[in-house]
Amino acid sequence: MLISLLALAIAAQAPPVMPPAPVLPSDAAEGDWRAIPDDELLVMTLATGKTVVIRLAARFAPEHVANVRTLARAGWWNGESVYRVQENWVAQWGDPSEKKAMAPGVKAVPAAEFEIAAFDAAQILSRPDSYSARSGITADGWPIAGDGKAAWLTHCYGMVGVARDALPSTGSGSELFTPIGQSARRLDRNYTVVGRIIEGMQYLSALPRSDATMGFYATPGERTGIASVRLASDIPAAERPKFQYRSTDNPRFAAYLRLREVAAPPTVPTGASVCDVPLAVRRVAG
Amino acid sequence: MLISLLALAIAAQAPPVMPPAPVLPSDAAEGDWRAIPDDELLVMTLATGKTVVIRLAARFAPEHVANVRTLARAGWWNGESVYRVQENWVAQWGDPSEKKAMAPGVKAVPAAEFEIAAFDAAQILSRPDSYSARSGITADGWPIAGDGKAAWLTHCYGMVGVARDALPSTGSGSELFTPIGQSARRLDRNYTVVGRIIEGMQYLSALPRSDATMGFYATPGERTGIASVRLASDIPAAERPKFQYRSTDNPRFAAYLRLREVAAPPTVPTGASVCDVPLAVRRVAG
Repeated sequence: MLISLLALAIAAQAPPVMPPAPVLPSDAAEGDWRAIPDDELLVMTLATGKTVVIRLAARFAPEHVANVRTLARAGWWNGESVYRVQENWVAQWGDPSEKKAMAPGVKAVPAAEFEIAAFDAAQILSRPDSYSARSGITADGWPIAGDGKAAWLTHCYGMVGVARDALPSTGSGSELFTPIGQSARRLDRNYTVVGRIIEGMQYLSALPRSDATMGFYATPGERTGIASVRLASDIPAAERPKFQYRSTDNPRFAAYLRLREVAAPPTVPTGASVCDVPLAVRRVAG
Repeated sequence: MLISLLALAIAAQAPPVMPPAPVLPSDAAEGDWRAIPDDELLVMTLATGKTVVIRLAARFAPEHVANVRTLARAGWWNGESVYRVQENWVAQWGDPSEKKAMAPGVKAVPAAEFEIAAFDAAQILSRPDSYSARSGITADGWPIAGDGKAAWLTHCYGMVGVARDALPSTGSGSELFTPIGQSARRLDRNYTVVGRIIEGMQYLSALPRSDATMGFYATPGERTGIASVRLASDIPAAERPKFQYRSTDNPRFAAYLRLREVAAPPTVPTGASVCDVPLAVRRVAG
């Protein structure tokens, strides 16, 4: 009996004999994966124990990202909350009183980084869209749009924007939001994008909606607490998350993008919007 | 003490003296609101007690809507569940076994209603989008797109589509889904749209996501039960919900649409997509 159980256990461990999956022209090559720097990863742990990981758009919104780093290093968000969840609009977090003193070194009025320097997409989508003459994906995996004069990161589902008061305010970066429904592209060029959620989006998108004005929870008890927000670079090496993004400046991503726009028959090809192109990331060992 | 409390209560009931809000050119006139027929309202009551109301696209997908009505009248969905919730994709409900016998009178293979007869938008958006040369809103408040040859309802957030097997299957209408994230327009012309959620969307969009394959819950305990799905026309008059939609074949909605596309300064006008035009409905007394 012992022997036969052992034999079964060994059989169960043996990998099934499967032919290797064919490599498609649209598949990433190993070298297409590139590391996201530790100080461009913001790790938000909710009071529920769930973790949301944000990739920071450091080269597109340097002043706001500098503020975000300063706030994270000061532990400024620890004990704060997700205080607004508006159906088909945004989840927003930070200090609901908007009265908490900023951490030392935070620039209260950073430059408005609503637009970015240039339209530098490595892969461009075939069609104009409702919001821009051109759109595409940067080499380092950001969705971008432009009109020939200006360029901007797009407020797709899961992007992270900086909440602000009425224009010309740009916000400091202490109050952040992410679109949780239809993309929020009417915020493009009017709000600063500081990042994108690359893991744990469902812990924000599935939070209960508030029916109160603008989706701000009516009572503190409805909020979801934030245990901590840290830069990965400030997390001890042994527990530090590591991520890579799929780069797009290669023919494999170009093939992937074309497949997304032009599906194989019998499916009718419909196109693809810049917010509907999956931008792959993966967790890797430290 | 009693008197002063009474005085306070009376004071609290007195309406504050406010000037009447000015009527804007983009505001609906009273006559712009039109009744949604009782047999075009599908009322899904979840086991949680929450209600989701769907407006049926009877004139665009007549065979599928006929099936939906037959299934509702047979109580076919009662006791079934929301069995799939995939992050940034869809919530889907019906019979997870896909083995339950259809109700008598249900057409097992209805006509594929992926496209509709004509592009009959009353108001057309200014720009082409990533998925269509033209898009707009029909007079009776449906988002629509076309390419000069065909036309179709668009898979925006909150639209209701018919789940199906691989093409050329069109599905019977027993398994329904709604996009809960970024719009799902790559399903346009490949899936049949049978309606739009007009109330209670948050009771589907905020359900916990499943990490299992394609978001199908791994265990029955994760599903959200469906207490009943009924046509409003089959609900006793005293408790029957009544809804009106805002019609769009009038200059007031045209002004509203232009405002949506071209925001007032200092906001930079960004445009609007067909999925980002709110299509107003309102509950009215019976």
